[in-house]
Amino acid sequence: MSDQDGSPEDRLIAQYFKPLAKHPGTFGFADDCSAITPPPGTDLVLKTDGLIAGVHFFADDPPDDVARKALRVNLSDLAAKGAAPLGFLLAIALPKGFTEDWLAAFARALGEDAERYKCPLLGGDTDSTPGPLSISISAFGTVPSGTMVRRAGAKAGDHVFVTGTIGDAALGLQVRRDAAIAERWRLDAAMRDHLVSRFRVPQPRMALAEIVRTHASAAMDISDGLVADLAKLCRTSRVSAHIPVKRLPLSTAAAQALIADVNVLEPILTGGEDYEILCTVPPAVAAAFTAAAASAGVAVTDVGRLVPGGSPPEFTGPEGRPLTFARPGYSHF
Amino acid sequence: MSDQDGSPEDRLIAQYFKPLAKHPGTFGFADDCSAITPPPGTDLVLKTDGLIAGVHFFADDPPDDVARKALRVNLSDLAAKGAAPLGFLLAIALPKGFTEDWLAAFARALGEDAERYKCPLLGGDTDSTPGPLSISISAFGTVPSGTMVRRAGAKAGDHVFVTGTIGDAALGLQVRRDAAIAERWRLDAAMRDHLVSRFRVPQPRMALAEIVRTHASAAMDISDGLVADLAKLCRTSRVSAHIPVKRLPLSTAAAQALIADVNVLEPILTGGEDYEILCTVPPAVAAAFTAAAASAGVAVTDVGRLVPGGSPPEFTGPEGRPLTFARPGYSHF
Repeated sequence: MSDQDGSPEDRLIAQYFKPLAKHPGTFGFADDCSAITPPPGTDLVLKTDGLIAGVHFFADDPPDDVARKALRVNLSDLAAKGAAPLGFLLAIALPKGFTEDWLAAFARALGEDAERYKCPLLGGDTDSTPGPLSISISAFGTVPSGTMVRRAGAKAGDHVFVTGTIGDAALGLQVRRDAAIAERWRLDAAMRDHLVSRFRVPQPRMALAEIVRTHASAAMDISDGLVADLAKLCRTSRVSAHIPVKRLPLSTAAAQALIADVNVLEPILTGGEDYEILCTVPPAVAAAFTAAAASAGVAVTDVGRLVPGGSPPEFTGPEGRPLTFARPGYSHF
Repeated sequence: MSDQDGSPEDRLIAQYFKPLAKHPGTFGFADDCSAITPPPGTDLVLKTDGLIAGVHFFADDPPDDVARKALRVNLSDLAAKGAAPLGFLLAIALPKGFTEDWLAAFARALGEDAERYKCPLLGGDTDSTPGPLSISISAFGTVPSGTMVRRAGAKAGDHVFVTGTIGDAALGLQVRRDAAIAERWRLDAAMRDHLVSRFRVPQPRMALAEIVRTHASAAMDISDGLVADLAKLCRTSRVSAHIPVKRLPLSTAAAQALIADVNVLEPILTGGEDYEILCTVPPAVAAAFTAAAASAGVAVTDVGRLVPGGSPPEFTGPEGRPLTFARPGYSHF
């Protein structure tokens, strides 16, 4: 990014993104690159995740929500890996008809989240595209060297924890697509708004990052759905799991939807975009983990245990029968 | 990236990108994030730059060239800042009709360039898009702490150097758009191919990075055109410049085009995508810089001098008259 000349591109950057150039290593976006000094003794934890209008959000979603989602889906990964945010790079491709009002609201919300999560914008690239609005963010965090929490490392007997509630975003997407669904699920306005806001604006569990790092044997964030993501963690750790679905934390809205339509269980478990942390904790520190999470104000729920073996995790229904799913998780292809 | 489960998305990643996961910090793409330990005493130099089909390349350009360009436009910035490559993140959004042959060739070439430039792939994100193929790369380099070469720092009296030749990519774009232009410019096949290949495949001057870092007072790569980019450097450094255009290094092909059509001078100077290094060198070390560049096998040309004052750099024509330009450089908006 550069604000230094009079081209329309540089004027946009100067007006909307330069106010976010608060880190000294950005040189006020008056250079081609930024420079940061990572804290000594740390590893950099790297993540890139993109959003495309019509794929990850609706083209008419509020720009401030789009900004928050774009940054937070990356922060969610950092939190699950036990990392503290260091900063991020933004690549945004604006469609032909974008308005400066849209860009102003987007940049303002992005700046607010950068402050909130102490994750400054370190540089970017602004392009014009004949296609839909696209945003790629690369986020960087730090952990003490060698301590990034992996998908590998979980052991049979470990407790399986999830933060927050599961399935809200997947249901929120359905409600956002078809308002009649809210009627069918007998959701009141507050429930409907809760689900949609969970789809639009993830709540990355940064307050749990250090607690995950010091307690969890393995962790990841839930982005493709609990079934698919727990399967990934188990495969990498060469374990399996047993999860009674009655133990899963559901919001009031999701619980109401499930009462109205039992088929909702599948999107809850496989729909994705939860952006909650899934982690495994050895029995010896499970109580300490729960207590630390409570102190940090992050709800965590013990949803089951890891078991030996290489088979996919087993999710059992209310009657104890194993559940099967048409599609275990989200895939772009 | 993750290769760990059976979704079509993960299968694509496993097949085409996992072979590039050679850095141990990628965990074979079997995790959500990668972790790298930056060398002690260094600053990280960060850059993100994206390519969109129909904007930065033609949708039917060869996939290996697209891969090289996507990485190299970022490496070019690192070189100009004096940084050694550390690694990169890739976000790719594939259009509906992409083929696996395309992806295979893209990934293979990307892997070859990662090896060539010792800049390993550290992670990525693969999406499907209803729009054109889009690629965002975030590249990281290192410099000894506090030594990133800036746009600021140039002083009146410093020599202005450029690497390689100027204007080839801008002319190559015109030839690529309209083959009849090659006839009008009386280019032979080799000249035409030279110009088009300079548009398709930048040659980042990595071999000069350390020499720039130890000799230059300021530097940047030329991506928006020499006129616009020198203006940015001068503004940031609060100096001006005098550049006699007869001193600019032109390829045989560009020189031939200029003989055939004097109007070609404007795109040569303002068309952009040169991905050459523009740097300023104090007179006391100019000879040493030239000698070091020669030893490194990188052609550099002394194209003029910095002068005091805040006015835009002056480019003078063959008769010594100042040139004016309709549009000083490339802008997306």
